[in-house]
Amino acid sequence: MRELGTGEAMHELVERLYPLCRSITGDGVRRTLEIVAEHVPLEMHEVPTGTQVLDWTVPQEWNIRDAYVADASGKRVIDFQESNLHVVGYSVPVSETMSLDELRKHLHTLPENPSWVPYRTSYYSSTWGFCLAQDTLDALPDGDYDVHIDSTLEDGHLTYGEHVVPGQVTDEVIVSCHTCHPSLANDNLAGIAVAISLAQALAREKPYYTYRFLFMPGTIGAITWLARNFENVGRVKHGIVLACAGDRGSLTYKQSRRGDAEIDKVMAHVLKTSTRPHEVKEFSPYGYDERQFCSPGFNLGVGSLTRTPYAGYPEYHTSADNPDFVSPDSMADTLATCREAFAVLDRDRSYVNLSPYGEPQLGKRGLYSSLGGRSDAKEAQMAMLWVLNLSDGDHSLLDIAERSGLPFATVVVAADALLDADLIKA
Amino acid sequence: MRELGTGEAMHELVERLYPLCRSITGDGVRRTLEIVAEHVPLEMHEVPTGTQVLDWTVPQEWNIRDAYVADASGKRVIDFQESNLHVVGYSVPVSETMSLDELRKHLHTLPENPSWVPYRTSYYSSTWGFCLAQDTLDALPDGDYDVHIDSTLEDGHLTYGEHVVPGQVTDEVIVSCHTCHPSLANDNLAGIAVAISLAQALAREKPYYTYRFLFMPGTIGAITWLARNFENVGRVKHGIVLACAGDRGSLTYKQSRRGDAEIDKVMAHVLKTSTRPHEVKEFSPYGYDERQFCSPGFNLGVGSLTRTPYAGYPEYHTSADNPDFVSPDSMADTLATCREAFAVLDRDRSYVNLSPYGEPQLGKRGLYSSLGGRSDAKEAQMAMLWVLNLSDGDHSLLDIAERSGLPFATVVVAADALLDADLIKA
Amino acid sequence: MRELGTGEAMHELVERLYPLCRSITGDGVRRTLEIVAEHVPLEMHEVPTGTQVLDWTVPQEWNIRDAYVADASGKRVIDFQESNLHVVGYSVPVSETMSLDELRKHLHTLPENPSWVPYRTSYYSSTWGFCLAQDTLDALPDGDYDVHIDSTLEDGHLTYGEHVVPGQVTDEVIVSCHTCHPSLANDNLAGIAVAISLAQALAREKPYYTYRFLFMPGTIGAITWLARNFENVGRVKHGIVLACAGDRGSLTYKQSRRGDAEIDKVMAHVLKTSTRPHEVKEFSPYGYDERQFCSPGFNLGVGSLTRTPYAGYPEYHTSADNPDFVSPDSMADTLATCREAFAVLDRDRSYVNLSPYGEPQLGKRGLYSSLGGRSDAKEAQMAMLWVLNLSDGDHSLLDIAERSGLPFATVVVAADALLDADLIKA
Repeated sequence: MRELGTGEAMHELVERLYPLCRSITGDGVRRTLEIVAEHVPLEMHEVPTGTQVLDWTVPQEWNIRDAYVADASGKRVIDFQESNLHVVGYSVPVSETMSLDELRKHLHTLPENPSWVPYRTSYYSSTWGFCLAQDTLDALPDGDYDVHIDSTLEDGHLTYGEHVVPGQVTDEVIVSCHTCHPSLANDNLAGIAVAISLAQALAREKPYYTYRFLFMPGTIGAITWLARNFENVGRVKHGIVLACAGDRGSLTYKQSRRGDAEIDKVMAHVLKTSTRPHEVKEFSPYGYDERQFCSPGFNLGVGSLTRTPYAGYPEYHTSADNPDFVSPDSMADTLATCREAFAVLDRDRSYVNLSPYGEPQLGKRGLYSSLGGRSDAKEAQMAMLWVLNLSDGDHSLLDIAERSGLPFATVVVAADALLDADLIKA
Repeated sequence: MRELGTGEAMHELVERLYPLCRSITGDGVRRTLEIVAEHVPLEMHEVPTGTQVLDWTVPQEWNIRDAYVADASGKRVIDFQESNLHVVGYSVPVSETMSLDELRKHLHTLPENPSWVPYRTSYYSSTWGFCLAQDTLDALPDGDYDVHIDSTLEDGHLTYGEHVVPGQVTDEVIVSCHTCHPSLANDNLAGIAVAISLAQALAREKPYYTYRFLFMPGTIGAITWLARNFENVGRVKHGIVLACAGDRGSLTYKQSRRGDAEIDKVMAHVLKTSTRPHEVKEFSPYGYDERQFCSPGFNLGVGSLTRTPYAGYPEYHTSADNPDFVSPDSMADTLATCREAFAVLDRDRSYVNLSPYGEPQLGKRGLYSSLGGRSDAKEAQMAMLWVLNLSDGDHSLLDIAERSGLPFATVVVAADALLDADLIKA
Repeated sequence: MRELGTGEAMHELVERLYPLCRSITGDGVRRTLEIVAEHVPLEMHEVPTGTQVLDWTVPQEWNIRDAYVADASGKRVIDFQESNLHVVGYSVPVSETMSLDELRKHLHTLPENPSWVPYRTSYYSSTWGFCLAQDTLDALPDGDYDVHIDSTLEDGHLTYGEHVVPGQVTDEVIVSCHTCHPSLANDNLAGIAVAISLAQALAREKPYYTYRFLFMPGTIGAITWLARNFENVGRVKHGIVLACAGDRGSLTYKQSRRGDAEIDKVMAHVLKTSTRPHEVKEFSPYGYDERQFCSPGFNLGVGSLTRTPYAGYPEYHTSADNPDFVSPDSMADTLATCREAFAVLDRDRSYVNLSPYGEPQLGKRGLYSSLGGRSDAKEAQMAMLWVLNLSDGDHSLLDIAERSGLPFATVVVAADALLDADLIKA
């Protein structure tokens, strides 16, 4: 298994995955998951076209080999081989000659950023199209063009992968990232890279929760997973959707629909106590697959962590979202934040004080003498008093850290000492 | 039926009603209600003196034909024929000659506004009195005066009127305004005029709720109505008390005792999303008949809408509250606000998402293609996602508008489309 | 019984108690309680060494007669007779000659305040020590010193005193202050003096609640009292821990662990409506005996009133906390605040409106005519309307005062009038 411990290593993976032509189905997704599986063991799922999944149906599988628009001289003026963004995702096959005017109805540009190529798809209505720079379009002379798309749209499968880091309990934390975008780096190759690195780190730590990593196409992938795991979804206690994990903007945490789920408190705490600039936003039913996890029937405690949020930067869904747009440092920072958050989540628990009438005598149990330096000792003692006072079943260690203003880690040390002394129990 | 659609038409009605000598009982009220009934059908109620109503008893009926104070030459120095404010409401008959010093005990002035005549009543203790300008009083020479009040206080009836705009359901919204003040324009002829115009507008709209308009004397009228409708009061789901509806100040909404009743949310939303300057105040047990509707035994969702609130302007309860004090524009604005609020209230409902697991596929139901222009389409799509996500029975359309920041009307359109598609139900 | 009505009288008591060598046990505490008992009758409790109290055990009793460090010439360079702070509390007996270097391990100073003597104790580990000014230590020449502590640490008793002001009900308010500190004036002789004066004042007033004053050593005293009153602790409805009651700082109220206990609301109300500068702080499990009363098993509605809070001033636990550090005015102000708070607490009650449907007719019951001057009358009438409107069992008179903005005393007068008229009941 390849280790992916640094921002640079994650960035190399982004560059390696970048050229593949992913979509919600097809061989580009399969190849992507194979590369993911070089880093973490992956259970692959292939769900046949036509399978009913909640309110949806698994669509036909799309694959594309080549596509271009060529001028009368045979020169490719728009070429899929240069960038897979040039073809509208799920374009049906076409092989025609047509005038520029006819062709225009099938062309998509970004007039406001004339050198960028937009990203467009048409999953659920049968059509075809090309995306190109406005500058390129402006330079095309009138005349006839050969239009060629060598794609297939046939019954096949939807492909997704799962990786599980087993924990001490079967309660699960899910980390989900979408794998359906072609040559877009921040959205979401950076998310995939951070997820892999996070999974590797967790595996070294024997976590409390079982952590399940989901690599699957947006919307239809999450819906397929939820449909196939409908009976077991209750074991998902927490989760985050990871996307746009590598741009140079500051972090944004979008709360779960519940707004006060434990993951919401944990992420807010970690972002607040770190000195990172950040934003915490309320849930909205728009964005990534938190839309599905937080639909009212499921209403899971799943939020979303991004840097600059969904659709919040001009490069979003354009050729400008290339590997240069994501930075190793940003990915490393996103990873570090996830690790800090999961360290808190994984250790956050509610205890009950077994000696709740008056303070127990800490001195006779050696809970003073075991302390080190003066100010540390004072803080450690305060933490024990706080844990004893608030361990009534209604306050978790994170609640106690928030209430007392003490670092979570200090509260954990105090709780561990009190557990050892049989003064609190889970 | 006369239409009362404009501020000018409402102002004309205020001027027509202004000279009548209203009180909590008597022919002035009857004549007022007859004029109201020229605009909207009115069910008249006559409740006999002595009827027990909750903790109160319907008082004797008071009528007055003439009243004056005349000097030794016979000249009327205070004259009921000039303004009915000159006589203390419910004054018992008197016919005496007395010195100015004796008379003073029965005179009421406003030293701080020496040219204004105050409004005074004494419903429940047997006395008599005159109100006059301080300037007038200062100019009276010593000497004897003839004092004459030709009034009757006899067993009779308390009179009030009801007008109902039938709705699709029997759940009711009440609009209440007091009819007991004599020549005072803002308090409450403006309220009466706005209520009539509001009733006319609602009748044209086939509303969801049944709207009941109550024209009745303050306090004893509301208490009488509540006593006589004690068993049915549960059908009153919402309501507003309308008063001081025509002065040039900005709007004030006073919340129901509940503070979070639906009418409270609706009024706050409409006032906030309009760009009107306004104030929302907490409930207090002082003001108009919201005092009765919000007594703890009833605790109805009834707030109060005024412009400058109860007792909040110097002209309050004086001869300066005349038709010039109220403006057609202000009445039109109060009316428009009521109509906007009732449009929201009438359409606010909670739905349940019938496809709550994941998002339903909107595309296959044509819920994308039916959309018009680009930014409209985006907002409409957002609204559908919000309605689907929050339709769990706990959130009304208004809650969804507030939470999403989308206009209520946009949320309603989305809900209608989702209802048509059988994706939500009431 | 000696009256302690003025700040000056309280200050005299502080000066009289100051020289006594108090600790958590011993004759200094007994002598202190004898002096308290000259002012209020005191039930004395003697709890034998070894008694199990909650998680703790009553320790051996410590008494000390003399202690000093003398130089080779026999001159006492540190002398218990000058100040009992010079000996570490609970020092075991010692009689040795040792070098200054050896002695240093047993010496405690305050380098940051070199002329002050610190206060140190070692209740639960067997050791001895001396406290002195850094300046004194710096002036000691090398050489041998005679070290002598004539103390006893033997089975005996823990001593505390209780004084009860009987009320109309057996529900109790406790006022607790610690008696274990030797020559420290603000901490806590000022608290003891204020508590005595408060008890004397309450006794004159025939209060509603039974008020129990507890004079006992910190921590072990409170734990002992709670252990011995375990079955009856439910009758403690409210309470305050009184400490640091005499310094020149402004008042600080530290809330009970509940945060919304009635005493918390009362203290916040009284401090807010007085114009005193003050601070209200959330509970923390550190400070005085509120730690024990607010341990999660008891979770009593007990807050803490101090001037400058626990450990919040440099003189804290040093020889600089002497009688000059506390002022008669500050003690009088603390006393006045307690009296105001207990006046509110004692009269705060929730009532139920017996005429909850509409307003009852106040006029026919003479509840208007009984009113005095104009603006007073208006406020009194408002207060009656507020009490009627909010007396639904969920709002106490204090809640009504807070909600209405009316003075608590005005609300009480209104409630009394409504009680007399049988319009509300407890």
